[in-house]
Amino acid sequence: MFQFLSSLYRNYALAVDRAPGLMENPGYSSGFDGLHHPSDDDDDEMVDIAGATLDFSATDDVPPLSSGGYDEYSAGSSSRAAGMNGSGPTKLVDPLEDPLPGVGTYEDFNTIDWVREKSKDRDRHREITNKSRESTVALLHSVSDAFSGWLLMLLVGLMAGALAGGIDIAAHWMTDLKEGVCLIGFWFNHEHCCWTSNETTFQERDRCPQWKSWAELIAGTAQGPFAYIVNYLMYIFWALLFSFLAVTLVRAFAPYACGSGIPEIKTILSGFIIRGYLGKWTLIIKTITLVLAVSSGLSLGKEGPLVHVACCCANILCHLFTKYRKNEAKRREVLSAAAAVGVSVAFGAPIGGVLFSLEEVSYYFPLKTLWRSFFAALVAAFTLRSINPFGNSRLVLFYVEFHAPWHLVELAPFILLGIFGGLWGTLFIKANIAWCRTRKTTRLGHYPVIEVLLVTAVTALLAFPNSYTRMSGAELISELFNDCSLLDSSQLCGYKQPVNTSETGVDNSLADRPAGPGLCTALWQLALALIFKILITVITFGMKVPSGLFIPSMAVGAIAGRLLGVGMEQLAYYNHDWLLFRGWCSPGADCITPGLYAMVGAAACLGGVTRMTVSLVVIMFELTGGLEYIVPLMAATMTSKWVADAFGREGIYEAHIRLNGYPFLEPKEEFEHSSLAVDVMRPRRGDPALAVLTQDSMTVGEVETLVESTHYSGFPVVISQESQRLVGFVLRRDLLISIDNARKRQDGIVSASLVVFTEHCPAQPPEAPPPLRLRGIMDLSPFTVTDHTPMDITVDIFRKLGLRQCLVTHNGRLLGIITKKDILKHMAQISNRDPDSILFN
Amino acid sequence: MFQFLSSLYRNYALAVDRAPGLMENPGYSSGFDGLHHPSDDDDDEMVDIAGATLDFSATDDVPPLSSGGYDEYSAGSSSRAAGMNGSGPTKLVDPLEDPLPGVGTYEDFNTIDWVREKSKDRDRHREITNKSRESTVALLHSVSDAFSGWLLMLLVGLMAGALAGGIDIAAHWMTDLKEGVCLIGFWFNHEHCCWTSNETTFQERDRCPQWKSWAELIAGTAQGPFAYIVNYLMYIFWALLFSFLAVTLVRAFAPYACGSGIPEIKTILSGFIIRGYLGKWTLIIKTITLVLAVSSGLSLGKEGPLVHVACCCANILCHLFTKYRKNEAKRREVLSAAAAVGVSVAFGAPIGGVLFSLEEVSYYFPLKTLWRSFFAALVAAFTLRSINPFGNSRLVLFYVEFHAPWHLVELAPFILLGIFGGLWGTLFIKANIAWCRTRKTTRLGHYPVIEVLLVTAVTALLAFPNSYTRMSGAELISELFNDCSLLDSSQLCGYKQPVNTSETGVDNSLADRPAGPGLCTALWQLALALIFKILITVITFGMKVPSGLFIPSMAVGAIAGRLLGVGMEQLAYYNHDWLLFRGWCSPGADCITPGLYAMVGAAACLGGVTRMTVSLVVIMFELTGGLEYIVPLMAATMTSKWVADAFGREGIYEAHIRLNGYPFLEPKEEFEHSSLAVDVMRPRRGDPALAVLTQDSMTVGEVETLVESTHYSGFPVVISQESQRLVGFVLRRDLLISIDNARKRQDGIVSASLVVFTEHCPAQPPEAPPPLRLRGIMDLSPFTVTDHTPMDITVDIFRKLGLRQCLVTHNGRLLGIITKKDILKHMAQISNRDPDSILFN
Repeated sequence: MFQFLSSLYRNYALAVDRAPGLMENPGYSSGFDGLHHPSDDDDDEMVDIAGATLDFSATDDVPPLSSGGYDEYSAGSSSRAAGMNGSGPTKLVDPLEDPLPGVGTYEDFNTIDWVREKSKDRDRHREITNKSRESTVALLHSVSDAFSGWLLMLLVGLMAGALAGGIDIAAHWMTDLKEGVCLIGFWFNHEHCCWTSNETTFQERDRCPQWKSWAELIAGTAQGPFAYIVNYLMYIFWALLFSFLAVTLVRAFAPYACGSGIPEIKTILSGFIIRGYLGKWTLIIKTITLVLAVSSGLSLGKEGPLVHVACCCANILCHLFTKYRKNEAKRREVLSAAAAVGVSVAFGAPIGGVLFSLEEVSYYFPLKTLWRSFFAALVAAFTLRSINPFGNSRLVLFYVEFHAPWHLVELAPFILLGIFGGLWGTLFIKANIAWCRTRKTTRLGHYPVIEVLLVTAVTALLAFPNSYTRMSGAELISELFNDCSLLDSSQLCGYKQPVNTSETGVDNSLADRPAGPGLCTALWQLALALIFKILITVITFGMKVPSGLFIPSMAVGAIAGRLLGVGMEQLAYYNHDWLLFRGWCSPGADCITPGLYAMVGAAACLGGVTRMTVSLVVIMFELTGGLEYIVPLMAATMTSKWVADAFGREGIYEAHIRLNGYPFLEPKEEFEHSSLAVDVMRPRRGDPALAVLTQDSMTVGEVETLVESTHYSGFPVVISQESQRLVGFVLRRDLLISIDNARKRQDGIVSASLVVFTEHCPAQPPEAPPPLRLRGIMDLSPFTVTDHTPMDITVDIFRKLGLRQCLVTHNGRLLGIITKKDILKHMAQISNRDPDSILFN
Repeated sequence: MFQFLSSLYRNYALAVDRAPGLMENPGYSSGFDGLHHPSDDDDDEMVDIAGATLDFSATDDVPPLSSGGYDEYSAGSSSRAAGMNGSGPTKLVDPLEDPLPGVGTYEDFNTIDWVREKSKDRDRHREITNKSRESTVALLHSVSDAFSGWLLMLLVGLMAGALAGGIDIAAHWMTDLKEGVCLIGFWFNHEHCCWTSNETTFQERDRCPQWKSWAELIAGTAQGPFAYIVNYLMYIFWALLFSFLAVTLVRAFAPYACGSGIPEIKTILSGFIIRGYLGKWTLIIKTITLVLAVSSGLSLGKEGPLVHVACCCANILCHLFTKYRKNEAKRREVLSAAAAVGVSVAFGAPIGGVLFSLEEVSYYFPLKTLWRSFFAALVAAFTLRSINPFGNSRLVLFYVEFHAPWHLVELAPFILLGIFGGLWGTLFIKANIAWCRTRKTTRLGHYPVIEVLLVTAVTALLAFPNSYTRMSGAELISELFNDCSLLDSSQLCGYKQPVNTSETGVDNSLADRPAGPGLCTALWQLALALIFKILITVITFGMKVPSGLFIPSMAVGAIAGRLLGVGMEQLAYYNHDWLLFRGWCSPGADCITPGLYAMVGAAACLGGVTRMTVSLVVIMFELTGGLEYIVPLMAATMTSKWVADAFGREGIYEAHIRLNGYPFLEPKEEFEHSSLAVDVMRPRRGDPALAVLTQDSMTVGEVETLVESTHYSGFPVVISQESQRLVGFVLRRDLLISIDNARKRQDGIVSASLVVFTEHCPAQPPEAPPPLRLRGIMDLSPFTVTDHTPMDITVDIFRKLGLRQCLVTHNGRLLGIITKKDILKHMAQISNRDPDSILFN
């Protein structure tokens, strides 16, 4: 037993060596000592980690290869079986009869086999359907099984909607806490505090007596340089406190709670296993620290983390239903829907959320998931609306209503915004990845708390003096999107009032007007805010706090768009007679809507960073609710995507996936190289031959030696070493568990026993020990391709079927094996990247 | 040569025998006489067909196995090659060097091989990319190739939008022509005619002097029983004329133009080839006859046929781009987008259209297609809007604006409507399929013209007296969806005016009111219309005219919904004090919106018939533009789908696909049976062994005998008959073309020549004729599964990879073959259907 453990540990240690800083985990080995008894839902048990990014909680849904948990399990299963038919233990552990616990499950940081998982689910479903004809109870069970998916979706929607509402309310309150406090109850935020005030007029709604700024409370005055400094210091203090709390909580309780989570969720949905990433500790800590991080005023958003939170909810709720708890493929269908829920609650855009999950996050998205995602996204959106966190009973985050239509000429500035968005996307990805790589490879990564505090201090110091950076990202975007109405008192609407208001009447008051001094100041501040946001976002994204990228990207785009929009507006106002404006922009008309430019810019920048297209346009469409503005949005996002793709085809999430070395086969990218399967498979020419098992001529001892001497996660079974004709495929984990179990439970299994994969045992001399029959754990239908199969077809097969490995044959003889990792390494090699950057299988 | 032809013809004749009435085609054999020279875009050439449903235009994109076209082609290719390297003809026809024309293409009524097509496209793309580094011209070519997809989408959007606009305008005019004519210009429809009138007031807008009913023109009076009879007769006359023209045009020029087209498009998108189905004749005739059929007043809609029209446009425009003309898989991506365009122009709902294509029509829908569909759908919608056929500058077909929110209690009637929709869907499908089967198997099918005229006569006779059936389906739905405003003069809004209007003011005037005599009449008429629509739609759908199902289904649902809505409204009005209504429906409030009920009912009925869910809800969402009403729609469509699925899982389109015996592997349905590949493959136990070729031991004569003696469309190549180890797979068509070509062009190829599939020729006695090397046409990477592979996995592989056939091996030895047809037959057998109903491969 110990030798397996040590060989296993050696492999892990190897992996840890190759990925320093990524997988340091002092608690790892303790998971194997059998102290943790496996239970169904402790896949998020935490271990104390110092300076590690990922945790390795070794207690799984399934027993690890440790004696403690394992013994308990197999004892349990054999006593259960013994009670059923009363025969001896020799029969019970025959794997053909009663599959061993642990056989058919996966280790952490491994890729699942979609085909096997789906087949398992169909077997389960078939059994329930067959039974349902027998009794009413079984029929009810079958019906409840069929509807459990919908029930789960309902629960996910309710839970995620409620959590999102809570996060919104808490973040709103804590953001305001940086500026002051409500005297009639510290739990009121600025807006709620002043709602209860009777004296508040429309103009003075921000200056109600119940709400005191910190300067008023501490220094007793709201005006003057001293008050300003007190407010400034308090702002920095609160920001530092919030961010310190956030990073400490993340490090202490849930290292997985940092970042946006979308790269990891993409990888998990593609079939990877990261235990604990969607566990309850991650959920709790991410929810709390998200509020803290957003409130601290850092340049980050809550949209990506909300997707993570929704996926955690879904994963936890999956434990309520056997169908989803036991099956990794089915669970991923639920997670796909949860990703839609996340975006649905983040923007109040259910259809956009479903398309986001389809376009950006999901790997395998059958139609059934489409319906369920849509249902869950709707439930979540309505739950959020009944909580009403924005206090305006609007579903959407940024409600916009424009009055003027757009003109064809305006497509030129919109496309310009698209180019800006594409360039910003490219630059941001390159700079951010370079920064994250530096953090990972240098000593910088060892001081995450100091890093967060430093960045927060810089952010707060620079953000406070500029009112556009002082407000939260969402408020900023909301203000930039807004069309100026007559009563608008914000600086951005500081136009000169036309002198002839009385003559032209109210209708005309929304027309283009010349910029006043207020607007000029606003423009300067916005330009400074743009530079600040661009720089600070690059170093913020990737820190050890929950951080989304949607809001900062959109803010950059919205500022750029608003600047361009106001520029266009003034150009049109002063040059009505230009050929460009003649015919559609007469004096006194409302030709150009700067808010629309801000919106288009926001879409373009978000598109450049994430490379979303349809889902982005649909989200924006749901914000405005009019088909009218789809064409500008479409033009800008498409341009942005094309420009950004010209410099590099990866979005920010794919770049982070590659940075972390996850095994992710990008479904969007085509494999263009003309290599054949034989060029990619292992063993290469000159390497030692492939390690294979023979179907009826190896002893237990020989098998164990073979398994120990290699680190492959599976072995093909052939008829004989000479013929190399393929019979099946056995996974290392299943083989180890079965042999170990047989040695303990089955009489007469010794090292000299024959391992038999055939249906009938071969004739043996009478004195030989009884053979060990393992046909039950062998996959009788391994996937094969011929050595001449072009790699583009092989990659297509891997993607579409979700394979883990594929065997390569030549004229019916086994030649080698291709794993997902081999393919990714080959792809890295083609594009001149380091093939060793692919860490997992 | 002739023997191949005759054997091929025998197979077809066999198929024709088995499907009488489906494939009678007197013009079929003429396609093989070499008179038609193949060209690139005549895949819609028509042959004279009497009483046939499908046509077999044998002139393809590719040369058929006829001497005429074939000679010309191969001569061309050899002269081209000779000019390039000047070597002798022996080398030129080596298939390794220069693939023969026709090799790698498909016959009519065959399934394509997705993997091969996609691989071909990647090869092409790789070549262009590699070349692009060499010269600027090649770079430009590469860029234009990359953008040709977008250009094509733009063109499809423009063309389909323009055609849809034209169809709308023409149908509107011709529908009005049944009632009267405009004196100031017969080309004006009723509405346009009265627009030019100055005397028209709001109330009297339908009675302008320029518009004369037929009675006024013929009898000189607009009133009285005589005028009524004249109008009645003229109505029937025009209806008969229009439908006669429609059915005659369809029969004479384009038999494929009948029906909705969606079942066939689904099949084509799944990889089937029906030449001419999307050709230019079909486009022209379908466009014209669609207008005629809609105008004739038959119970049919234009939505399904518009999808067909858009797909025809896309297919024709594909001929402009080599990338799409030459590749069946790429072309299908464009067709998927075109289906989205069709729904986009039908309803003015671009997002709904894309989701419709994704959910209902498409088989293979990569993300790239999602973006392009969305783009094309938007272009088409905006083209249609700039044509403005409805004269209201609205994008959508039915613009609805509701004022009152809905209450949770109302979910009960909404779910009731869902149940009604599900029942109607089930009944409609069962009745319609039974009727279509009768038509197909009895003499009824021989008289399509008489059938259409009879149905039109009955429809017109019964429809005219009832104003709700006399108006077109779209108008009826529009009226039923509408909320009653105060000024509404229609019968449906014939409520009693409250006496205390002056007291309560305008606000209250929209409140619930008691039904007046007008409304009561309307309700009776609606109930009669409901019964009429239900019965007539069953026999209308499937006739030999273009006929969509969306509008009739929605009409049935809208009537039922409106009836229930008015019922609920009156119930609430007279019983405010019931517990059910207390708290949310006080007297004088506007609690219940009958229009919303109509909308929910329409969605439920359409959902029951087609089993759409998300796309349907999104289409309806785009009609109303408010997220508010998504929940009722969702509840009704989901209920409807569940109820309908309980009685049978097939939607109307799948049912028609099965009725026609097309090879369609439903991607939504799970394969539940526990059979293995070995149970499905051919040969079955006891059958003669599989016909295989050996790689280097068969002569040309032996191969020809083997091919002639079987009807398989492909043959595995093995090392030797004894070992049965698989080398590759050769398609019958490729084999025949290559042998035939070699016999003619290559010196010394006689029946005794060895056919060699290996890389190096085996040693032969010196006097032997030169071998025929055919490695070039062999697929070196055929798909294999083991005999133990569960069928659910095999079906999954077929679906996801789009396979045509798959070889079955056991321990590396070839055992048999599974084709798509075998799978479909197996599935038919499992569900106790006739396996011979699957006609094509």
